[in-house]
Amino acid sequence: MGTLETERTTVGWAARDPSGVLSPYTYNVRNTGAEDVYIKVLCCGLCHPDIHQAKNDLGMSRYPILPILHTVMPRLLAFYGCENWSSCRGGIRGNEVQVRGETWGRDCRGCCGGCTQSDLEQYCSKKIWNYNDVYTDGKPKQGGFAGEIVVHQKCVVKIPEGLESEQVAPLLCAGITVYSPLRHFALTASSLRGGILGLGGVGHMGVKIAQAMGHHVTVISSSAKKKDEALEHLGVEAYLVSSYEMKSAIDSLDYIIDAVPVVHPLEPYISLLKLDGKLIITGVINAPLQFMRRKSITGTFTGSTKETEEMLEFCKEKGLTSQIEVVK
Amino acid sequence: MGTLETERTTVGWAARDPSGVLSPYTYNVRNTGAEDVYIKVLCCGLCHPDIHQAKNDLGMSRYPILPILHTVMPRLLAFYGCENWSSCRGGIRGNEVQVRGETWGRDCRGCCGGCTQSDLEQYCSKKIWNYNDVYTDGKPKQGGFAGEIVVHQKCVVKIPEGLESEQVAPLLCAGITVYSPLRHFALTASSLRGGILGLGGVGHMGVKIAQAMGHHVTVISSSAKKKDEALEHLGVEAYLVSSYEMKSAIDSLDYIIDAVPVVHPLEPYISLLKLDGKLIITGVINAPLQFMRRKSITGTFTGSTKETEEMLEFCKEKGLTSQIEVVK
Repeated sequence: MGTLETERTTVGWAARDPSGVLSPYTYNVRNTGAEDVYIKVLCCGLCHPDIHQAKNDLGMSRYPILPILHTVMPRLLAFYGCENWSSCRGGIRGNEVQVRGETWGRDCRGCCGGCTQSDLEQYCSKKIWNYNDVYTDGKPKQGGFAGEIVVHQKCVVKIPEGLESEQVAPLLCAGITVYSPLRHFALTASSLRGGILGLGGVGHMGVKIAQAMGHHVTVISSSAKKKDEALEHLGVEAYLVSSYEMKSAIDSLDYIIDAVPVVHPLEPYISLLKLDGKLIITGVINAPLQFMRRKSITGTFTGSTKETEEMLEFCKEKGLTSQIEVVK
Repeated sequence: MGTLETERTTVGWAARDPSGVLSPYTYNVRNTGAEDVYIKVLCCGLCHPDIHQAKNDLGMSRYPILPILHTVMPRLLAFYGCENWSSCRGGIRGNEVQVRGETWGRDCRGCCGGCTQSDLEQYCSKKIWNYNDVYTDGKPKQGGFAGEIVVHQKCVVKIPEGLESEQVAPLLCAGITVYSPLRHFALTASSLRGGILGLGGVGHMGVKIAQAMGHHVTVISSSAKKKDEALEHLGVEAYLVSSYEMKSAIDSLDYIIDAVPVVHPLEPYISLLKLDGKLIITGVINAPLQFMRRKSITGTFTGSTKETEEMLEFCKEKGLTSQIEVVK
């Protein structure tokens, strides 16, 4: 175990205004506290939202801003203060050096901890975003374009031996964005037919992860310009241009990962789904449907004969009656 | 077992034009075939779509039209032709008289039968609608405002002893429309907090069935005019007027049964749902989202720390790499 220390200075690359141009910026990283990890940044990924934040496209950027924390590949420098080091995530001990990554959008305000116990910390309403946010003391939290960072030990993940740092960085954003819903919604059986809508950073990892699960993958895009990349380089089974090739695929897909980060209609893609199919929105878009925290919209049509008989038994058992007006 | 017979005449009440006015109409019911049931109609429910069909509001009515079949409470007159009577639905035998109901929107074209085996016949793409449709021989299929009807034995349901015929009729539409999604989406635990959007025929059965499951029920409506009915007569826990009382209920509901049969925005109701909450559309509306055959739209936000570590192990095991450009 380390000891509590005072603030340290580091140098990062910050945007100073909506031009988004990055320049060197010297600042203090936060004091290391109990259960904090002080890490050197080896490399970072760069995601589309990072550019939006650097350029203030969402109208909420606080300058100077160091973007990118969620895909940091760090090397552990020291681990501080935790009395229960044996139970810490991944078993970090003393000054052992382990390669870890910080995951998307969270640090800890020391709230109830229930989100962590149920592995839902990404949905905690009190999380500290990984940059363009402030700590509880009001000091700015900066991103990963820096020499060193400090994060809470429960916000880092263990990275398997043998993976290249540069390769891992995008997995911590695009990879997990696709992997999590496929696992959560039980879409991992090898025979599934999956659609990937949009072939950007998230979409291309979607193709690879779905293929690795054994799925039959169709890429859907607004134009034909990525057709060769999808069919030849990535080896997907089909490529549909959304404006004119969709009819052939109606009722054919078990799920669609929607990785389009701009406003777009959803209706045409619902028609491609089989019964019980799922359209899974992964982009942070505000319209036409609010970002959904795993909420869902679904629709059903009456019930089967078997369900109807079951419902009648239920109503009988519970003594349910309907409000009726009898007309002879 | 009965014997195959020729067409019989019956008298029903049919609409002749878009005025929707019903008048007596004599016509032939279909020939009874193998596995058909010939039944006398004791009473019918009347649902909102029946009025739309009688008045040609959807622009697809074929006159003369006898609406209403899906909530028929019939008395069995005879059962014809089935060689395997012991395995027939509910064990109808010979001339035993049993009270049964025909369920929503289906008769059989004699297609693959897979839908029935998996209890999904309401979603069969080849079903014959219960009225305003034609049999395979091109003759019109009429609804339940009639003296007698003929239906396939697998399209009738067994009704428990002791339920009043008039009470059962609405259960065969409104009741099953609510019961089926609550069962299918595993929303039956007694502690759940449910919302019922719209307090019409489906909504009021939704309240009763949800309460009978032990749920804490909130009614959401566009006006306050049904507040007394909801709070005092039905005994719900809360009543929200959608235009100005929604903020107090944000992130509070496990599900909402949307029983509004006209076009309306969905966004405000999504905000009322908890993490993993479900907005379940039961009305047959064409916009803003197509009628969904149990398809769903959902959204997720990255993944938990635990899921991220699992994803990295998966990528390592499968040898997955991302397409990256390394910038020093």
